[in-house]
Amino acid sequence: MSPILPNIQSPADLQRLSDAELAHVAQEIRDELVRVLSIRPAHFASNLGVVELCMALHMVYDFSKDRLIWDTGHQIYPHKLITGRHAQFDSIRTKGGLMGYPNPVESEYDLFVTGHAGCSVSTAHGLKVGDDLMGQSDRKSVAVIGDGALVSGIVFEALNNAGGMGTDLLVILNDNKMSICPRTGSLASYLDQCRMTNFYQGSKRTINKILESLPVVGGLAQSALEQLRDGLKAYFKGGMLFEEMGFRYFGPVDGHDLPNLRKLLRDLKSQKGPILLHVLTEKGHGVAQASADPVTYHTPPVFEKIGPERTIVSLKRGGSKAYTDAVSACIHQQMQDNPRVAVLTAAMCQGNKLEKVRESFPDRFFDVGICESHAVAFAAGMAKTGMRPIVDIYSTFLQRSFDQIFQEVALQNLPVMFTLDRSGVVGPDGPTHHGVFDIPYMRMFPNITVMAPGDEADVAPMMKFGLTHPGSVSMRYPKTNLETIQRTVAPVEVGKAEVIESGEDGVFIVFGTLLGDALRAAERLRQEDGLSIGVINARFCKPLDRETILRAVREMPMVFTVEEGTLEGGFGSAVLEACNSAGLNTQHIVRLGIPDRFIDHAERAEQLAEMGLDVNGFCRAVRQARAKVSQESESLDLPVA
Amino acid sequence: MSPILPNIQSPADLQRLSDAELAHVAQEIRDELVRVLSIRPAHFASNLGVVELCMALHMVYDFSKDRLIWDTGHQIYPHKLITGRHAQFDSIRTKGGLMGYPNPVESEYDLFVTGHAGCSVSTAHGLKVGDDLMGQSDRKSVAVIGDGALVSGIVFEALNNAGGMGTDLLVILNDNKMSICPRTGSLASYLDQCRMTNFYQGSKRTINKILESLPVVGGLAQSALEQLRDGLKAYFKGGMLFEEMGFRYFGPVDGHDLPNLRKLLRDLKSQKGPILLHVLTEKGHGVAQASADPVTYHTPPVFEKIGPERTIVSLKRGGSKAYTDAVSACIHQQMQDNPRVAVLTAAMCQGNKLEKVRESFPDRFFDVGICESHAVAFAAGMAKTGMRPIVDIYSTFLQRSFDQIFQEVALQNLPVMFTLDRSGVVGPDGPTHHGVFDIPYMRMFPNITVMAPGDEADVAPMMKFGLTHPGSVSMRYPKTNLETIQRTVAPVEVGKAEVIESGEDGVFIVFGTLLGDALRAAERLRQEDGLSIGVINARFCKPLDRETILRAVREMPMVFTVEEGTLEGGFGSAVLEACNSAGLNTQHIVRLGIPDRFIDHAERAEQLAEMGLDVNGFCRAVRQARAKVSQESESLDLPVA
Repeated sequence: MSPILPNIQSPADLQRLSDAELAHVAQEIRDELVRVLSIRPAHFASNLGVVELCMALHMVYDFSKDRLIWDTGHQIYPHKLITGRHAQFDSIRTKGGLMGYPNPVESEYDLFVTGHAGCSVSTAHGLKVGDDLMGQSDRKSVAVIGDGALVSGIVFEALNNAGGMGTDLLVILNDNKMSICPRTGSLASYLDQCRMTNFYQGSKRTINKILESLPVVGGLAQSALEQLRDGLKAYFKGGMLFEEMGFRYFGPVDGHDLPNLRKLLRDLKSQKGPILLHVLTEKGHGVAQASADPVTYHTPPVFEKIGPERTIVSLKRGGSKAYTDAVSACIHQQMQDNPRVAVLTAAMCQGNKLEKVRESFPDRFFDVGICESHAVAFAAGMAKTGMRPIVDIYSTFLQRSFDQIFQEVALQNLPVMFTLDRSGVVGPDGPTHHGVFDIPYMRMFPNITVMAPGDEADVAPMMKFGLTHPGSVSMRYPKTNLETIQRTVAPVEVGKAEVIESGEDGVFIVFGTLLGDALRAAERLRQEDGLSIGVINARFCKPLDRETILRAVREMPMVFTVEEGTLEGGFGSAVLEACNSAGLNTQHIVRLGIPDRFIDHAERAEQLAEMGLDVNGFCRAVRQARAKVSQESESLDLPVA
Repeated sequence: MSPILPNIQSPADLQRLSDAELAHVAQEIRDELVRVLSIRPAHFASNLGVVELCMALHMVYDFSKDRLIWDTGHQIYPHKLITGRHAQFDSIRTKGGLMGYPNPVESEYDLFVTGHAGCSVSTAHGLKVGDDLMGQSDRKSVAVIGDGALVSGIVFEALNNAGGMGTDLLVILNDNKMSICPRTGSLASYLDQCRMTNFYQGSKRTINKILESLPVVGGLAQSALEQLRDGLKAYFKGGMLFEEMGFRYFGPVDGHDLPNLRKLLRDLKSQKGPILLHVLTEKGHGVAQASADPVTYHTPPVFEKIGPERTIVSLKRGGSKAYTDAVSACIHQQMQDNPRVAVLTAAMCQGNKLEKVRESFPDRFFDVGICESHAVAFAAGMAKTGMRPIVDIYSTFLQRSFDQIFQEVALQNLPVMFTLDRSGVVGPDGPTHHGVFDIPYMRMFPNITVMAPGDEADVAPMMKFGLTHPGSVSMRYPKTNLETIQRTVAPVEVGKAEVIESGEDGVFIVFGTLLGDALRAAERLRQEDGLSIGVINARFCKPLDRETILRAVREMPMVFTVEEGTLEGGFGSAVLEACNSAGLNTQHIVRLGIPDRFIDHAERAEQLAEMGLDVNGFCRAVRQARAKVSQESESLDLPVA
C-alpha cells in the first residue's frame, strides 16, 4: 500500500479510509516513531501504545471544537502526526521545531502545554463546565490519563468534584500497567483486578439467573434485594472504585482494536454524566523490543541500527557520566555507610538512576509513584523517627510538594534532604521540565539550607554534609555531564563559599555548575583582554557566605553573580539582599541568570547561549560592564534619568 | 461529682476512672471548651465532636511512644486537655500561650505543628515506616482524619502507598458529614452510602443463607463462586472504596460511645496491615446550638452570654468590616455585571464570605472541597473557554496549588484571577496560617501580574482590573479591618503606583495595606521630627512601576520598602532587582517586612509590632536610618570592614 499518512492534513481525512487503510496508517505512525528515534531521543514506548486510541478518538470526536487533554502530554506524537504536523515531525524537540508536548501555538488541536502529570481530569472538567456556561454545551470533553498518572492526588480531587457535579466528561484510563517505572501502590493491584473481571464475563448469564431466582429465597426486603442486585452488578462489572467516585465505568477493552474502540466511543459520546472508560494498551506496541522492555524504551537513547519490520538492532548508549550518576552513586554509598539513610522517588527510579540503590537496599528504597506531595510528607514522618530520608525528585516536579516542604519539613525543622535533579534548563523537554524556580522556592522558607555543587568534586562532600546537618538541606544539580575542576577542594562547611581564583578587576560568584564556564571565561578574559577576574564557588545560597561575598562586593570593581535559575528572587537577589542589609553599594553587581519568561525547547547549550549563560555570554557581560565603568569614570556627572 | 479534669496530668490518669467518671471528664472537657470560647474565638464544633474519640485513643494507646497525628490539628483541644496542659488552657491562642494546633514544643504528645489539611496519613505512614527501620516496630501509628480533609489529593496518594506497602497503620475517618463548609463531591455521597449499610446489617444472616445455597444453583465454577462471595461480603460490609485501596475497613461506629470505641480500638490495635476505622461523630456534640449549626460554630465569635448546661444564649458579633467582606462584595458585583465571571473556593465558603455569592449565582459558584490543586487546574480549564474564573483561596492554602499556578495558569498565560485572602500575618492561628510567602511565589512566575490594594478604595477597581486584564492577576489582602485613606484615588492601571504624599527627606514605598500605618508614621515624623517623608502606594509588585519607584530611589535620601511578607525574595527584593538592573545605588534603601523565621501565634497587632511593621516600627526605622545618614555625612571615610 502506498503511504497515506503524509496526506492526512487533519483528522477529517481519516474518515474516508477503509479499515485496512486505517491499519496501514497505524503502521505508518509507528514507522515514523521508529525513524524519529533514530535521529534523536524522544518519548517512544508510550506513543507506540496510543496509536489506535488516538485515531479512534479523532474519528469519533471533532477536536477542533470538542476538547481533548492528553495527560502529561508525552504520548502526543500520534496526535501531532494526524493533526496536520506530519511534514514538520522531523523537527520535533529541536529549537524552533515541534514541541515534544502539546502546544497551542502549533495547533488548535492542542489546548494546554503540559508535561507534569495528573491535571488532565481537572482541566477537561474545567473546559466542560466553562463551555456549558459559555453556551457551548454541544462541545464534548475528553481526558486521556495513564495508570501511572492516575495515582496523583489531583486526579482523585478532580474525580471527586466531577463525579459529585455529574459533569458530562469522558475520562479514558489508558492502562498499560506501567508508570515510567513499574507502578506501585494499591491502585495498581486494583487495576489488575479490574483486568481479571474479563475472565468471568462468560458466567454473567449464570449470575443473572441467580439474581432472577432471588426474590423467592429467604424473604428479603425489596430494598435490600435491590442493593444486593446493585452490589453484584457493580462487582462483576468491575471498576467499582470509579463507580463509587460517581463515574460510570466501562471496560476493560482492547486499546489496539481500532474498529471496536470507534464503536464504543460512538456509543459513549451520546451518554451524559461522568464516564470512565478503561482501555488496555501495551506500552511499546508494534515494536518487539519496546513492548518487551518498556522501561528502557520510555525515552531510549538514539537507535543506532534498525532492522526490517521495526526491529531495533542496537541503541547508541552515551558514554559520559552525568550529575545524576554521581548523586545516585553517593546515595548508594551513604546508604551503605548509614542504615538510617533512606531514599524516596516519585516514579523516577530510572530518571534518577536509582535501580542499583533499589536492588541493594530494597527496605530503604521507596517509590511512591507520581505522588510528590505524599513523598515529602512521608519523608518528614520518617525523619521524625530519627531516619535521614533523601527526597530525590526533579526540581520541576518537586514544585508539587511546595506546601509539604513548607509545613511538614521547614516548619518542623526536620532533617529531610532534597536532591533536586534537572535544576536549570533541561534542553528538548522544554518549559514544563526546566527547573528554574527552585532557588527562590527553597530559600524563601526558614530552616532550609540551600546548596548547589560547583562541580563533581563537590557532590560527595555535599551529600555527606546534607545527611549529617541537623536540619533540612536541598542540593540542586543540572541535567548535564560531570565536570571536575582541578583544585585543592575546600571542605564543605555550612554557609562557606570557596574562592577558586582570586582576581583584581572583578569576580564571578557562581552558584552551581556554571562554575566551569565562569573559569573558562575568566581565562579567556585574561588572555584576550588582560583582565584579572576571580571566581568564587558559592556552594550555599542559604545561608550565604556573607564574609566572602560581601568582601568581594566591597573590594571588586565588578561583580557578576551567576546562577542557572530565575533572576526573580534567585541567588543574585539573595546577594543583593545581603549587601543591602550590610549597607553596601551594589551598582557594580551584574546578575546573570534566567530571565522572566518561559524558555522554549532546544538543546541545553543553545538555551544557555541564548541567555548569555556560557563562556561567550560571561565574557560579553564582563566587557559590557567594563565599558560602562570606563565610561562612567571618564565623566564626573553620574547619569540621572 | 467533683472536678476530675484538673487532676488529669497525663492520659495514664484516665485508666483508673470508672465509666461514669470518664463520662464526667467528657462533660468537663466540653465545659472547658464553652468557657474558653467565652473568652476568645477558637475552633469549637470540631473539638466538641472528638472528645470521646480522643479519650478512647489515649486509653488504648500510649502516645508517649505510639504515634498519633490529628489531621489539620484544629480538633486538638481535648488532646491538649488530657495530656498535661489543662492548667495552661486559658492561654490558648495567645502570645506565649498554648498554640491552637499541635505543637511539639508544648508536649511530647504533639508530633507535628500542623494546620493545613490532608497530610496526616502520609506522616503517620512515614512515622511507622521510620520506626520499623529504627528497630522500634512495637510503636503503633494512628492518623485521625475528618471527612472534609479526606478529599485532599495527598490523602489518596498516601492510602495508595500505605495500602500497597501493607503498612501497619490505623487511619480513623472522623466522619461528621462536614467540612468547614457543607462538604461536596462524590466521596460525600459515598460516605453517606457507607452510613446506610448499617441499616442492612440485620439482613446479613439472610444473605449468608443465600450464599450457602449458591453452590447448587446454576453450576458456577468454584473461582467465580468465591468471587461472588467476596463481592457480596465487601458490598454489604461497606467501605469497599477503602478495601480497594488496600485497607481493611471497619465501621461505621458511634464516635460518642466511649466504652465501645475503647473495645474496638483494643481489638484493632493487635491487628496487622492498613486499617480504616469509620467513626461517626457529631460536630458540635453536647452543645445544642453548635450541633444544630456546625458551620457557624466551626470558629464562632466569642460567646456573649452562656446559659445553664452549656446553652449559648448569644454570640458577640463583630461590627467592623474586613477586607474579606469588601472582596466578596466585589466578587458579587462582578458576577452580576459579567456572566463570564465565576468563583471557586476550596471549602472556604464561610471564611471567604461567599455565602451570598453562592445563593445568587449557584451555577457559577464552585466549592471543590479542600482540593486547592484541582481548583486551580479546574479554573484554568474554564479560563480557556473564555470564562473569567476567580480562585478565592487563602494565601497559605494556595501554596498547595504552586505547581498548577506554574503549569496550568502561568505557562498557558490564562486569565485566572487569584484573590489571596489572609495574606500577611493572621494572628492567633499562627505559622501554618500566615500568608507570608505569596509575594515571592507569585512573582517568580512569568505572565502573572501581582497586586495588593493599599486600602479599601483600591479593592473594587483592582477586582475590575483583574477581571479584564488579558492574563493572570493575583491580588493579596490581609485578615484585618478595612481602612479607607482619604485622597483622590488614582485609577488602577497595570504597573502604576500611586504617589499619596510627596516628601523631601525620604519615602515609604508600601505594597499592601500597611499603607495606612506608613501614612500615620509619616505624619508623626513630620510633627515630632520635622521630617518630610513621602508615601507611595505601590499597588503592583509585578510589573513594578519602575518610573515612579526608580525616581524615588534616585531622588530621596532615604527609601523604605514596606510589605507584609517575607523579605527573602519579596517586594523589597523586587525593588532592589529593578534598581540593580537600572544601575542605581541602593545603599539608602531599607527593606521592612517579615524576617526569615516562623512567626509565633499572638494577636496580629502584637506580631506586626514585634517585627517593626507598625507606626512605631516605621518611625523607628526612619530615625535609625537618619542617624546613620548623619553619621556617615560627618565622616568622609566610608566604613569598610
